[in-house]
Amino acid sequence: MANDNVVFVGNKPFMNYVTSVVMQFTTKNADTVVVKARGKFISKAVDVAEVVKKRFLENQVEVKDIKIDSEEFKNQDGKDVRVSTIEIELVKK
Amino acid sequence: MANDNVVFVGNKPFMNYVTSVVMQFTTKNADTVVVKARGKFISKAVDVAEVVKKRFLENQVEVKDIKIDSEEFKNQDGKDVRVSTIEIELVKK
Repeated sequence: MANDNVVFVGNKPFMNYVTSVVMQFTTKNADTVVVKARGKFISKAVDVAEVVKKRFLENQVEVKDIKIDSEEFKNQDGKDVRVSTIEIELVKK
Repeated sequence: MANDNVVFVGNKPFMNYVTSVVMQFTTKNADTVVVKARGKFISKAVDVAEVVKKRFLENQVEVKDIKIDSEEFKNQDGKDVRVSTIEIELVKK
């Protein structure tokens, strides 16, 4: 089930997410892990993917696909707000 | 020259970058515009691309490709630092 291998990046410490992705590939032997984030956490999600790819699982995983999107909704003040999202698909080489 | 149509997102106001991308497509009649950013500005670059795609040039441009990468260098304290980068390629439909 591909949907199981999703790591959603938020405000926890950076290394939590790196460890989580690495463990999906190693302990859980996943072929694919999708790193997702919204809004300001998008930069952090890219950092997570890069650190996994270039340091922890160097030459073992690569970026297969990256999708960006955005959702519009009303905030508490009734104002239209747009929030961007990212999905970074990492795969075993 | 494709390299001319690059918008580098940094700490200027958000709409500066949106306007800049829109003008590349309209006034300058570019077929492709690449939105680039580093580090914490990656989230802002995704926002810029999304606002151009979904609001200002709705149904006129789409995301063709997204690349992420990172560079490692020593900061002032001699410590190794990694900075992630993103390149979002927008094209006319």
